[in-house]
Amino acid sequence: MTAPREVRASAPATVANLGPGFDVLGVALAGAGDVVTARATSETGVRIVRIEGDDGALPRESSRNTAGIAAERTLALAGIDSGVELELQKGLPLGSGLGSSAASAAAAAYAVNCLFGSPLRKPDLIGPCLDAEAAVSGRHADNVAAALLGGLVLVRRVDPLDVVRLPVPEGLTLAVVTPKHAVSTREARAVLPASIPLDAHVRASADLAALVGACHSGDWALLARAIGDDLVTPARASLIPGCLDVIRAALDAGALGSAISGSGPSIFALCRSPRSAAAAADAMTAAFARAGLESSTIVSTADAPGVRRL
Amino acid sequence: MTAPREVRASAPATVANLGPGFDVLGVALAGAGDVVTARATSETGVRIVRIEGDDGALPRESSRNTAGIAAERTLALAGIDSGVELELQKGLPLGSGLGSSAASAAAAAYAVNCLFGSPLRKPDLIGPCLDAEAAVSGRHADNVAAALLGGLVLVRRVDPLDVVRLPVPEGLTLAVVTPKHAVSTREARAVLPASIPLDAHVRASADLAALVGACHSGDWALLARAIGDDLVTPARASLIPGCLDVIRAALDAGALGSAISGSGPSIFALCRSPRSAAAAADAMTAAFARAGLESSTIVSTADAPGVRRL
Repeated sequence: MTAPREVRASAPATVANLGPGFDVLGVALAGAGDVVTARATSETGVRIVRIEGDDGALPRESSRNTAGIAAERTLALAGIDSGVELELQKGLPLGSGLGSSAASAAAAAYAVNCLFGSPLRKPDLIGPCLDAEAAVSGRHADNVAAALLGGLVLVRRVDPLDVVRLPVPEGLTLAVVTPKHAVSTREARAVLPASIPLDAHVRASADLAALVGACHSGDWALLARAIGDDLVTPARASLIPGCLDVIRAALDAGALGSAISGSGPSIFALCRSPRSAAAAADAMTAAFARAGLESSTIVSTADAPGVRRL
Repeated sequence: MTAPREVRASAPATVANLGPGFDVLGVALAGAGDVVTARATSETGVRIVRIEGDDGALPRESSRNTAGIAAERTLALAGIDSGVELELQKGLPLGSGLGSSAASAAAAAYAVNCLFGSPLRKPDLIGPCLDAEAAVSGRHADNVAAALLGGLVLVRRVDPLDVVRLPVPEGLTLAVVTPKHAVSTREARAVLPASIPLDAHVRASADLAALVGACHSGDWALLARAIGDDLVTPARASLIPGCLDVIRAALDAGALGSAISGSGPSIFALCRSPRSAAAAADAMTAAFARAGLESSTIVSTADAPGVRRL
């Protein structure tokens, strides 16, 4: 009797809503992530047999958990009717703005795909992971695409999916600071305006376009001018104690730009070097402390890898 | 006694509102433009002594004419208190969506700057030309920046001005077809929505960003997916007989994309080669004819030069 085949995969934390890229611009972070172990079983369907590191907060039913949904959709897309059981080790805190649900989905989709001989390519897994994300936090692919592909990604469209990897200027580094403070994705979506003035659209779209241009041309000054978020961060700032002070602290410490990561409460700073990012992280941590919040920090270059087999 | 010094400058037609780049993306066209002759005079101030080719439609008062305003602002910015007289030869039809007012402004600003030894660089002239444009057709710089700098330009911001030149993929060519049908810029602005749904912003900004990325990477397929305009062209289509049929004809003829040029009635098609653009132009001309409109055509690569001294 042979041991049951199993595959373990790890998917990284991600920053979505990067600056002016609401719902469309995401980046992977090195150093933290979720791990999913997938095993083929004789029963059909997907079963979650164990979750560690979530303090019991995540649903164990496969159909309500992003790892379970992504695994199911991956099997369906690949035309595999075997059964799978999943173990999920949460390395990322929930509701943190670090793409926790996306990391679980990406790790599960990739582990399941590997388990059956990788019939799908990584970009093919974005769809299954998007379906998973849609079930828990809205139909946006900027977290899952970055978690799968790594680096910096632009989601041009979700229906049909159209995702572009962007070049990352050498040295570009993120400092992401996560305070101990809960913000639900649902609440963060609720404070967004349903519509925006046409001139606000003109400014934000020009910023996003300039940011993409700056990534291609390596123009740091343009990148710094374009990275601000005047649309979403102001609307959500009141949900995060000290938010605007933390952003101000990052800029004063030399960051190119700073805004809310995902739906918060994490705040990212985009910096020209790891050294500059470390300085920004310190300043942001101190600013959160002044607002009465402890926080943790990730510093990562913007070219971190995506999901991988362990 | 020496002859009075004079400088003649020519500025090209331009397409503004290029695809998803409402108010921010412009491109220069070769082969048509306005010519301004500037002469130093002993009186202070700017005087327009002659306008040809406008059938008397343009105001002769310097303060109400974009050539006059741009000349005045250029003198002020350069700190020159000499007087100037201008002759304007209109090569571009008015109210055509070909950047007629911007071409007059750019040619005047450049001619005046040259007349006094070029104290300002071309990008410095965008501000004076923007002021001129604002007086007649709204505060947008996508026409004037393209008319001055040539090629493809992204206006990240007008206050303060921040304009980026974009790389042009080799062969990228525009067909621009102008029907005999008047659309006032004011009317065209009036039909625009004051605000747009957040998800429409997300799609349009992702298109613009992808378009800029495609220009950098030379990805024709991405460029074709991103060039559509779902925001402004649908709102303005009813102002131009046959508009959607003309766009459809361009696409059927192989254009990468097609939308209203500026505030219309001209319609542009972006194509992969001059040959493809010629085919698109023929199809668009035929479609306008079916709608009962005669039209004229410009075919130009997207890397046409900006304003120049004659």
